[in-house]
Amino acid sequence: MWRVYCFPLCPFSRKIRLLMSEKGIGYEIWRTDPWDAGEEFWDMNPAGRTPVVRDAVKDITLADSRAIAEYFEETVDKAPMINGTAKNRAEIRRLVALFDENFYHDVTMPLLHERMKKRLILRQPPDSRMLRDAMKMAHGHLDYIDYLVDTRPWLGGPQMSLADLAAAAQISVADYLGGIDWRDHAEAHSWYTTVKSRPSFGPLLSERMEVIQPPRHYALLDE
Amino acid sequence: MWRVYCFPLCPFSRKIRLLMSEKGIGYEIWRTDPWDAGEEFWDMNPAGRTPVVRDAVKDITLADSRAIAEYFEETVDKAPMINGTAKNRAEIRRLVALFDENFYHDVTMPLLHERMKKRLILRQPPDSRMLRDAMKMAHGHLDYIDYLVDTRPWLGGPQMSLADLAAAAQISVADYLGGIDWRDHAEAHSWYTTVKSRPSFGPLLSERMEVIQPPRHYALLDE
Ligand SMILES: N[C@@H](CCC(=O)N[C@@H](CS)C(=O)NCC(=O)O)C(=O)O
Ligand SMILES: N[C@@H](CCC(=O)N[C@@H](CS)C(=O)NCC(=O)O)C(=O)O
Repeated sequence: MWRVYCFPLCPFSRKIRLLMSEKGIGYEIWRTDPWDAGEEFWDMNPAGRTPVVRDAVKDITLADSRAIAEYFEETVDKAPMINGTAKNRAEIRRLVALFDENFYHDVTMPLLHERMKKRLILRQPPDSRMLRDAMKMAHGHLDYIDYLVDTRPWLGGPQMSLADLAAAAQISVADYLGGIDWRDHAEAHSWYTTVKSRPSFGPLLSERMEVIQPPRHYALLDE
Repeated sequence: MWRVYCFPLCPFSRKIRLLMSEKGIGYEIWRTDPWDAGEEFWDMNPAGRTPVVRDAVKDITLADSRAIAEYFEETVDKAPMINGTAKNRAEIRRLVALFDENFYHDVTMPLLHERMKKRLILRQPPDSRMLRDAMKMAHGHLDYIDYLVDTRPWLGGPQMSLADLAAAAQISVADYLGGIDWRDHAEAHSWYTTVKSRPSFGPLLSERMEVIQPPRHYALLDE
């Protein structure tokens, strides 16, 4: 069985867990905080980042969420998530990069810093200007999702794809941390509600990160 | 013919240009500075980043260097650069991410900021502490390359792969900006000299970024 090294609010691990669930790949969670990880973890991933996935029986260790996603895509036929023509696939991968890099940098990372790291590690109050900036950036990204779902059934094209999982993973962490305001984003909200209602999403929504509590609407499927 | 939107010191564009040359895919350069790009560029890539590649005849526009690399890998058989078993391929992609993200963040990005953006845009002198820190981080990454080429013929395994192109692209920009000190890195240096000597590397080494001059050894193939 695969083991996923991660912590509850790591958006890249969420993307991989969603992918594994959709594909029916069993896994167990091995709680790992990158800011407090031991030598064994750094040996598995010299980048020192979560997620890492490992199958001890087959002795396979994989790091970097996009490399992991491509691996499962290549080895498990069920529920293809990077699908279609080469051009379609490039579009899915472009969007995954946009959410993994730009959304993470603009929104998820500052929220994790202000609301999680400062609370758990630095013991400092959050900087309200940083929080406001992150929420403002979130609006820009939600505008883009509004636009995408206005023109296509799913973010990456005609079928659900890794682009939807990547976006929903980032948004779910930002939402947990109080950074998402759905007003004026009806299209994005209806797309997110659909993704959030999938069985693969259930385990993520029920997890909690120690002392940090999500807003009331976070785990509700009709909000 | 493909057009590559980029500027001479963009490491991600260098990776793609190396890949295209190795595969024998013709292209022209369309100079684009992301910090000064117009609406047309942002329409092609809402992330506002280089590289973007476009084939106007086929009306295909691709963004994000890893998405672009996978596209050419899927559509052009010559010189496969993400090769081998699924496990080998995951290892290549892990290393590409390590150089694209960690090396770039630790070394190339601060060097570009201090030595290029401050000179060309901000009109400020570089911060020597930032430069020292970037060079120190470069040593750590070169240590890891020493270790890799000590255990395998190429960074990603038995054959030259996208991992070599990604690493050499980052290193070449850092080297241009005076951030690479090869002392104590004989293995990494000998690997880099091999990659740098390939015909695909020639055009990169002869380009200059306006007023910024590389150190004397930068374009020499025996140093
Ligand atoms: N490109 C990596 C990014 C992973 C990442 O940044 N993970 C964060 C946690 S959400 C981390 O481990 N950060 C610690 C660090 O960068 O030192 C991936 O897609 O897996
Ligand atoms: N993930 C992207 C990263 C590209 C990137 O960061 N490009 C830099 C130039 S070297 C850029 O355009 N930066 C401008 C920005 O991020 O606003 C890729 O692999 O193509």
